[in-house]
Amino acid sequence: MTLRIFNVLGREKQEFVPLEEGRVGMYVCGPTVYDHAHIGHGKTYIAFDTIIRYMRYSGLDVLYVQNLTDVGHLLESGEDRILRKASQLQAKPMQIVESYARSYFEDMDALGVQRPDISPRASAHIPEQIEMIQDLIGKNHAYEIEGSVYFDVTSDPDYGKLSNRKIDSQQAGSRETVRGEKRNPEDFALWKRAEEEHILRWNSPWGEGFPGWHIECSAMAKKYLGPTFDIHGGGIDNIFPHNECEIAQSECANDADFARYWMLVGSLTVEGIKMSKSLGNFLTIKDALKQYRPEVIRMFTLGAHYSNPVDYSADALAGAAAGWDRLYGAVRLTRQMMNSAPENSADGDSFQSRLDETRSQFSEAMDDDFNTPRAIALLQDLTRDVNALLNGGTTVGLSTLNAINSTYQTIGGEVLGLIPAADGAADSGSAQREAKLVEMMIAMRAQARANKNYAESDRIRNDLANIGITLEDRADGTVWRVE
Amino acid sequence: MTLRIFNVLGREKQEFVPLEEGRVGMYVCGPTVYDHAHIGHGKTYIAFDTIIRYMRYSGLDVLYVQNLTDVGHLLESGEDRILRKASQLQAKPMQIVESYARSYFEDMDALGVQRPDISPRASAHIPEQIEMIQDLIGKNHAYEIEGSVYFDVTSDPDYGKLSNRKIDSQQAGSRETVRGEKRNPEDFALWKRAEEEHILRWNSPWGEGFPGWHIECSAMAKKYLGPTFDIHGGGIDNIFPHNECEIAQSECANDADFARYWMLVGSLTVEGIKMSKSLGNFLTIKDALKQYRPEVIRMFTLGAHYSNPVDYSADALAGAAAGWDRLYGAVRLTRQMMNSAPENSADGDSFQSRLDETRSQFSEAMDDDFNTPRAIALLQDLTRDVNALLNGGTTVGLSTLNAINSTYQTIGGEVLGLIPAADGAADSGSAQREAKLVEMMIAMRAQARANKNYAESDRIRNDLANIGITLEDRADGTVWRVE
Repeated sequence: MTLRIFNVLGREKQEFVPLEEGRVGMYVCGPTVYDHAHIGHGKTYIAFDTIIRYMRYSGLDVLYVQNLTDVGHLLESGEDRILRKASQLQAKPMQIVESYARSYFEDMDALGVQRPDISPRASAHIPEQIEMIQDLIGKNHAYEIEGSVYFDVTSDPDYGKLSNRKIDSQQAGSRETVRGEKRNPEDFALWKRAEEEHILRWNSPWGEGFPGWHIECSAMAKKYLGPTFDIHGGGIDNIFPHNECEIAQSECANDADFARYWMLVGSLTVEGIKMSKSLGNFLTIKDALKQYRPEVIRMFTLGAHYSNPVDYSADALAGAAAGWDRLYGAVRLTRQMMNSAPENSADGDSFQSRLDETRSQFSEAMDDDFNTPRAIALLQDLTRDVNALLNGGTTVGLSTLNAINSTYQTIGGEVLGLIPAADGAADSGSAQREAKLVEMMIAMRAQARANKNYAESDRIRNDLANIGITLEDRADGTVWRVE
Repeated sequence: MTLRIFNVLGREKQEFVPLEEGRVGMYVCGPTVYDHAHIGHGKTYIAFDTIIRYMRYSGLDVLYVQNLTDVGHLLESGEDRILRKASQLQAKPMQIVESYARSYFEDMDALGVQRPDISPRASAHIPEQIEMIQDLIGKNHAYEIEGSVYFDVTSDPDYGKLSNRKIDSQQAGSRETVRGEKRNPEDFALWKRAEEEHILRWNSPWGEGFPGWHIECSAMAKKYLGPTFDIHGGGIDNIFPHNECEIAQSECANDADFARYWMLVGSLTVEGIKMSKSLGNFLTIKDALKQYRPEVIRMFTLGAHYSNPVDYSADALAGAAAGWDRLYGAVRLTRQMMNSAPENSADGDSFQSRLDETRSQFSEAMDDDFNTPRAIALLQDLTRDVNALLNGGTTVGLSTLNAINSTYQTIGGEVLGLIPAADGAADSGSAQREAKLVEMMIAMRAQARANKNYAESDRIRNDLANIGITLEDRADGTVWRVE
């Protein structure tokens, strides 16, 4: 089996061959930290998190770089116009950056998105950006005018190769202000002179200014991954102009290929329209997490292939929640039965092969351009068989239960991030004592029933139900769950 | 009442008068992020955290800048010498920085140390450092030689004013390599040429190199707080050369005073010797938190005045733990009694005045150069009276209990960080259900006793004790605590 990736550059599924065997250099465009992240960001970064988790699970050594855009693409308009000291004006955008960068990582941590190995910030790489711009000017790919520097798109015959746009077919305008000073309307800014109201500014060979939005990714990818690296990822909506400009800048400055594989994630939509801050149709991750478990949000976004859009609705989330409850119900039951199961029983061998089959089909699905919907469907299929086994009235031995738990934990937990670790491991003292208290109540209820004191046993059951704990009597004892 | 601060610059206690009324600009030297933080770092940053919490409690608007040193003072020697790509070499130190910066904030969060408003990194401010060095050369305070730039200490008549060292009395060497190229042995590096083995390097007017350790703080303090600002803090061991060099650089480059008040924190020692990574006599914060609650570590370090050293020992921590248990015991009892207290009772007015007195004495103690040992003693005194009131057999009304709880929560919690918020507020679902389950068990035990079934009531008590929950029968009912 080999990993195959749909390469947006060339629009075909290709075998993934890293530059250096066993190692992967990967760059993903990170967020602009000027507000709280919404679940559209969640979809993008859960997708790359799962992709990277799977590559690592497959034995690849991944170096994952994801930037934070804190300048150039950041609105600085302070509401507080009465700040008097210049230094406080300097501090203000960095306070905003600091607090939203923290908020972003809080949200990602909550969603189980593992941290990038390096999270470079645009504002921390001004010299590298200036150097790359100087290289581009030196090679006649860029020109300075009145303190700003622009990339000359006509100097790069490859410009447009990712998005398949030809220069003459492009719309004028887009994100760049069309100033009279550009040679071609499609030229984009590498450096902008700072007008008076611009707070974040640096000295440069062209006067005080700040970098254009695209150059940061070119400079930081080069610094940490080299001129040519394996995979560049991002959201599909940034394919033009951002990703296209990155390629133009990097390949012209470095005289080398930029990223070899491009992976772009489909948008999260609401009634078909992309969720975005500017459209106002967004749900922040913090608000989403008040309603849904993080695993349910992952289940929802991973339920579609990463390259596809997913439409957000309460129904879609409810569907994901039901699917997740079914998966996790089987895991919880398995773990509860592990507490009292005999070491071995006859069931073992046959179910082990079912688990092996699932693991191998899982790798096949994920090797096929990270087909997470297929991977989740495989887990649901397995769950049907696990439920049949566990509820079938036969005794299931500990080794089989362990194998089931470990299968869920590895492919469902470690790779997809859908299955939390065994309760005991991650839990607080309160949760552990809660479990013991419930077991004590269950024993007292059993005693009451043995004494035929059904009023008491019903009272215990009802009292527990009142605080959200449901008991379920099974052939092999009483199990419980929190509703 | 006015806040008075012992100003290390001048060695006297002075009334604190901020540059701009109601606002405080504060810079504290942060950690070098190349390893896990130890409780010596904990002492320093808990001290400044408490100082800032108190200033905010007093109504001051504090802008708190604390840097992260990720270059210049960082050993880069990679153990892994087989890395082949230059880009991977570039990535390696930044991965180290990333992971230890994360570890540092994790530890600080765990200790209840509130985040700085801005956490600028040295590597993110290379242009600002280069500019300041250029200014110093232009003003004849610095000279370039073979790609390195040194500050000429003989050019600054004030050099030594913080540490009271005269140039001729200083020891040669210290942290700076004494190269033959320096004019005076005490001159210190502003910029160092990068030798071949140096990975983190930037272009500069003097060739490829990296900034000296001291210049980062001068450049970043100026950027975010202005040339002159209110308070500069740090650990006492950095008074020379680091703080002294900062003053020299900043005042010579800016032709203005640097920080107006200097506050330096005494070291954490082990058998009298400063705890430090290099001496090997350290306990990491992560290890300490396995043994002690964060509040106990705060109690331990705040038990001495910030400017004094504190000697670490298991006995000292045990003492802090006992002191904390006593405080928190009273808070927990107060909160439990709040659940069943009558709205009002006769006790009210007299105890309110006791609380008012404590609050006012607390502000007096903290206004006197942040006298935390005195503040803690006041809380202990209060606790004696609270315990006498709550255990005195009289009925205490809800309004008095609320006032007691709020006093602890404000001065003990919000300012000193010793008292956790009310259990219900911060707690997980499990903790809330735990509390309800214990109440159910207490009710069942009461029922068993009413039925004179003492075997059953003892069994419930013992079962709870086995999972760490202790019951205590009081005149007004049974209360519980986790041991």
